[in-house]
Amino acid sequence: MTQATQPKTHSTTAAFEALKCKECGAEYELKASHVCEFCFGPLEVKYDYEFLRRTVTRETIQAGPNSIWRYRPFLPVATNTPIDVGTGMTPLVQSNRLARRLGLKKLYIKNDAVNMPTLSFKDRVVSVALTRAQELGFTTVSCASTGNLANSTAAIAAHAGLDCCVFIPSDLEAGKVMGTLIYNPTVMSVHGNYDQVNRLCSEVANTHGWGFVNINLRPYYSEGSKTLGYEVAEQLGWQLPDHIVAPLASGSLFTKIYKGFQEFVEVGLVDAKPVRFSGAQAEGCSPIAKAFEEGRDFISPVKPNTIAKSIAIGNPADGVYAIDIARKTNGTITSVNDAEIIEGIKLLAETEGIFTETAGGTTIAVLKKLVEAGKIDPEEVTVVYITGNGLKTQEAVQGYVGEPFTIEPKLDSFERALERSKTLDRLEWQQVLV
Amino acid sequence: MTQATQPKTHSTTAAFEALKCKECGAEYELKASHVCEFCFGPLEVKYDYEFLRRTVTRETIQAGPNSIWRYRPFLPVATNTPIDVGTGMTPLVQSNRLARRLGLKKLYIKNDAVNMPTLSFKDRVVSVALTRAQELGFTTVSCASTGNLANSTAAIAAHAGLDCCVFIPSDLEAGKVMGTLIYNPTVMSVHGNYDQVNRLCSEVANTHGWGFVNINLRPYYSEGSKTLGYEVAEQLGWQLPDHIVAPLASGSLFTKIYKGFQEFVEVGLVDAKPVRFSGAQAEGCSPIAKAFEEGRDFISPVKPNTIAKSIAIGNPADGVYAIDIARKTNGTITSVNDAEIIEGIKLLAETEGIFTETAGGTTIAVLKKLVEAGKIDPEEVTVVYITGNGLKTQEAVQGYVGEPFTIEPKLDSFERALERSKTLDRLEWQQVLV
Repeated sequence: MTQATQPKTHSTTAAFEALKCKECGAEYELKASHVCEFCFGPLEVKYDYEFLRRTVTRETIQAGPNSIWRYRPFLPVATNTPIDVGTGMTPLVQSNRLARRLGLKKLYIKNDAVNMPTLSFKDRVVSVALTRAQELGFTTVSCASTGNLANSTAAIAAHAGLDCCVFIPSDLEAGKVMGTLIYNPTVMSVHGNYDQVNRLCSEVANTHGWGFVNINLRPYYSEGSKTLGYEVAEQLGWQLPDHIVAPLASGSLFTKIYKGFQEFVEVGLVDAKPVRFSGAQAEGCSPIAKAFEEGRDFISPVKPNTIAKSIAIGNPADGVYAIDIARKTNGTITSVNDAEIIEGIKLLAETEGIFTETAGGTTIAVLKKLVEAGKIDPEEVTVVYITGNGLKTQEAVQGYVGEPFTIEPKLDSFERALERSKTLDRLEWQQVLV
Repeated sequence: MTQATQPKTHSTTAAFEALKCKECGAEYELKASHVCEFCFGPLEVKYDYEFLRRTVTRETIQAGPNSIWRYRPFLPVATNTPIDVGTGMTPLVQSNRLARRLGLKKLYIKNDAVNMPTLSFKDRVVSVALTRAQELGFTTVSCASTGNLANSTAAIAAHAGLDCCVFIPSDLEAGKVMGTLIYNPTVMSVHGNYDQVNRLCSEVANTHGWGFVNINLRPYYSEGSKTLGYEVAEQLGWQLPDHIVAPLASGSLFTKIYKGFQEFVEVGLVDAKPVRFSGAQAEGCSPIAKAFEEGRDFISPVKPNTIAKSIAIGNPADGVYAIDIARKTNGTITSVNDAEIIEGIKLLAETEGIFTETAGGTTIAVLKKLVEAGKIDPEEVTVVYITGNGLKTQEAVQGYVGEPFTIEPKLDSFERALERSKTLDRLEWQQVLV
């Protein structure tokens, strides 16, 4: 299949200049490449901030589309017509009932469980990566995924008319597999965990001319997560929060929210202030939390064993950078067990009407743990990042939610069930709340 | 549990004046009531359009929130602080690949599969109904639902701190049941079809002091669907389309899109023009399509038997009004079978990256059928309404999508699978497209 052709208007405002090694600073052309040839450090996109300071204002951003592309000058694409399916600008919900339950005064929920089109934050990074893939001439795109990324890559590739082949571990949740297959990509289900899938994909990236969004396109791809920083700052009325809590898988999301805040300060869109960064992992796959707690500067890889499959990365590429940010911002990184994750999912649903997947349950459970440990000040403006939708991981909560009352279509059958329901303590949390 | 209290600012711009019988014109106070005491006709909300014409402009709307509440003056609530969880303003996607496949030039997809918070258009009507329920003093809300409405009512009630009891038929899809239970409402699973559930709820509404969103609150609730008309008009650059295709369950959505367009013309926000209204039903529950095709002015109720459970209403309350609109706008109403519905779901996913539920598959299949029958002009600006998300009805497509290739985490295992994939004709649709 050939690539869908659309007329591309090239931007006069692109500010990305080079790929630059995060370790040694060596610079490279803006190609599909992710590792420094000198020191094997990761490559990152470098921008002309002076140019951005002169050309971007709050007003130019607000005049843009209601999607991540309102921040296009901060993203590594040259085109003025990126792939825009409405991704981003998800609600920042001021929490009322969850905040009260936890004893916080200024809690906000950034709700990417309703991100478009595939209901996770991955739509942000994939929209950027596939736009850049088209600019670089790729006609087949691919990824190593724990599920959400495969959903997003397959869907946005379908929209853009790109060929697509995705790689997933063979033990994924049914909703994540169906949520990929429906778009009709080629799906490789690998006997192994995500880290094995990822290693295989690195080999494939070297031998086939494919654009792997999170391997050879990773420097472009990962920049998409900065929009989770930009949007929160804009939605708070062009201010930074005091504290953010986000899930950690590879650690990339965490570092890019940080970069997003820094860039907005750098170009004068918001005032500088200290923001604490706290990270959430599942106990069954918590190499970053362990290193943080033990005061280490290196990650010891682990074999994942948790229901939070979407964040189960045993050898996280950006783990050390995440630790560095948590330390220098006076944040923390900690983990919760599977039972706490399930309670986290239910707590968010019952108090805010937001149904998140296991990663979001992890983040809410860590938020609760941090509050209980006195590590979040009730007066802090705290933003918790919910990154995916619960409809994709239904098996995680099956058996842990209430049951329907089965009745006949008759008033007396209903009345009996209603009486029974009043004697049950299944509403006890709600009653505690009152 | 008591109702969450929030300071309510009462609007000085509310334009709703009375409830008015759609049949005899009798007027009533703005209470929780839905049937005319004189003629048993349905009640509808009446507005002061003169006032709206003087006070609402394109600019006042655009200065509002990025949700259905930008149209608040056209909605039947008095408060300036409605329940706003980001509902509405879903993408209107200009179709490229589906349009080409069908031979249409100006096709747009209104994508409520990513509506917030529960991924169906029901979030619109429920946001309005629960805001009004709070104004009328209800502390418990309820509904008769085919699934999506229960999801939405439970979620938004949780957010607002309202008690909630929902009624569903006992044969619903697993995703729709879990997508309700997670919010911890009381769920009554009724042995019977939707029409039996609905009758039971009418009895309960008379005996308990609950706010049933689609029974005693129905006049307010149903107005929320007008926003699907307003948004399309605004997103087309303040113009009406030439032709819309929407699913028909009770028929209410269809009539309210029509009302939304009419109101925008009435108050001078868009120019008047003819818009054709075409409706989609599943063959296994097509009482409105049958009456339309047979030229009848009345609906003969049927017993539903289709995979499209969310639109399986055998005795549709607004069916006759839908028929009237289709006739007078030179539209049509037709049905497709279950196999066509599944193909419709796959077609939309493969060409546009949008995963819809069975109702959306029905609408896409009807769109295709109308194009093939020459009933849609390729030059018409056609808007197809996608009203719900495919993650909730995964069982409908299970067995009808491709399978993953299961491989070992080794390059040679991948290469063998890739070779095999090339010999399969599973990509034949995509090849046809090129």
